Amino acid sequence: MDVFIEPIGRLINEFTKLPGVGRKTAQRYAYKIVSMTDEEAANFAESVINCKRKVKYCKVCGNFTEEEVCEICKRRDGSTICVVKEPKDVVAMEKLHEYKGVYHVLHGVISPMDGIGPNDIRIKELLARINGDVKEVIMATNPDVEGEATAMYIAKLLKPLGVTVTRLAHGIPVGSEIEYADEVTLSRALSERKQI
Amino acid sequence: MDVFIEPIGRLINEFTKLPGVGRKTAQRYAYKIVSMTDEEAANFAESVINCKRKVKYCKVCGNFTEEEVCEICKRRDGSTICVVKEPKDVVAMEKLHEYKGVYHVLHGVISPMDGIGPNDIRIKELLARINGDVKEVIMATNPDVEGEATAMYIAKLLKPLGVTVTRLAHGIPVGSEIEYADEVTLSRALSERKQI
Repeated sequence: MDVFIEPIGRLINEFTKLPGVGRKTAQRYAYKIVSMTDEEAANFAESVINCKRKVKYCKVCGNFTEEEVCEICKRRDGSTICVVKEPKDVVAMEKLHEYKGVYHVLHGVISPMDGIGPNDIRIKELLARINGDVKEVIMATNPDVEGEATAMYIAKLLKPLGVTVTRLAHGIPVGSEIEYADEVTLSRALSERKQI
Repeated sequence: MDVFIEPIGRLINEFTKLPGVGRKTAQRYAYKIVSMTDEEAANFAESVINCKRKVKYCKVCGNFTEEEVCEICKRRDGSTICVVKEPKDVVAMEKLHEYKGVYHVLHGVISPMDGIGPNDIRIKELLARINGDVKEVIMATNPDVEGEATAMYIAKLLKPLGVTVTRLAHGIPVGSEIEYADEVTLSRALSERKQI
C-alpha cells in the first residue's frame, strides 16, 4: 500500500512540477489544499485554468497580455525598445516606474550548448519593428555568457539600421561591499569607471 | 497600470495562500503555469478539485481516506493504536514500514494559548475506541510543550481503562553529535538511559 491515498499522491505529483518544489514541499501544499474549503479549492483551480486560457503573447513585443497587443505597446513611447529575455524581466523593469519606452521579449537567449540559435528566439520580430521612429534599443539581457553573446549578436544586426544600441551598465551593485565583489564584476566596474 | 495582467496577478495571489509561498515564489509558479500546455494546466487544476472532492476523514481514526473507513483501519491489527497530531505524522510513521498497528489522528493538540481545549481535538473519539481488544496506546504527539501536555492528559484518561500507554522515546537523534545536542534533549537522554 502506498503511503498516500491516490488523490493526494496525484496532487503531490502535480505540485512537484512547479519550479523548485520537491516532494516534501509538494506534500505540504497538498495538505493545505485538503484543509481548504470547497470554495477556496475551486477558486484555486479555476484561477489556474483562467490564467492559462486568458494569457496570450503580445504579437508586437511578445510579453504576456490578454489582448492581441499589450497595454504597454498600445500606450507607450515606441522610440525606445528595451530587449529582455523573458516576461519576468519586463516585470523587474516595470517595478522601477522609471522606464517609459516599450519592450521586446526574446523568449530565450542564443545558447549553442542548448541548441538554441538566433532563429529560435524572437530576433526576426525585433528587426521587423525597427523603423524611422525607433531611436534606441536597450539590450537588457542577463549579464551572463549567453546574455552577453545575444546582446552582441543583436547589436551587430541593428547598427547598420542606424539605431543607437545601448546595454545596461555592469558594475558593483549599490549597497554591496567592494571586498566581496567578484573579480569579473570588479574588473568591469573599473574599466567602465565614470568621471565624477 | 499594475505590473501583472489580471489573470496572472490573480493566480499569484492564489499561490501565496500555500504555506511558505511569498510573492516572488508565487510569481515563478504562475509563470510555470503559463508556460504549460493546455492539457498540463487542466490536469493540474483537475487534480486540485479531485483531491478536495475525494479526500474525506476516516470515521474511525481521522486520517485521510477516500472511503468511510481507511485502509489501515480495515486491514491492520487494532490492538495497538498510535496517537498522532496530524495526518502527516501518519505518513512519517508509515514510511518506516515497521509499525503494524492502527492510528488515531487528533487533528490538533491541547493548547490553552490558542484556545484549544480537550474537547476541540478528537480525544472523545479515542476513548470510544478503547475496548478489550486494545492492548497498547502509543502517544506519538510532537515532543514540544503542547504535545507533551496532550500526551500526559490522554494517558491519565486511558490508564483507568486498563490499557498500556507508552510514549515515543526522547533522546539524542541518531547520527548527531552530543556536543551540539540541546540541553533539554541531552538531559532527557541521560535520565532515560538504558542498560546495554
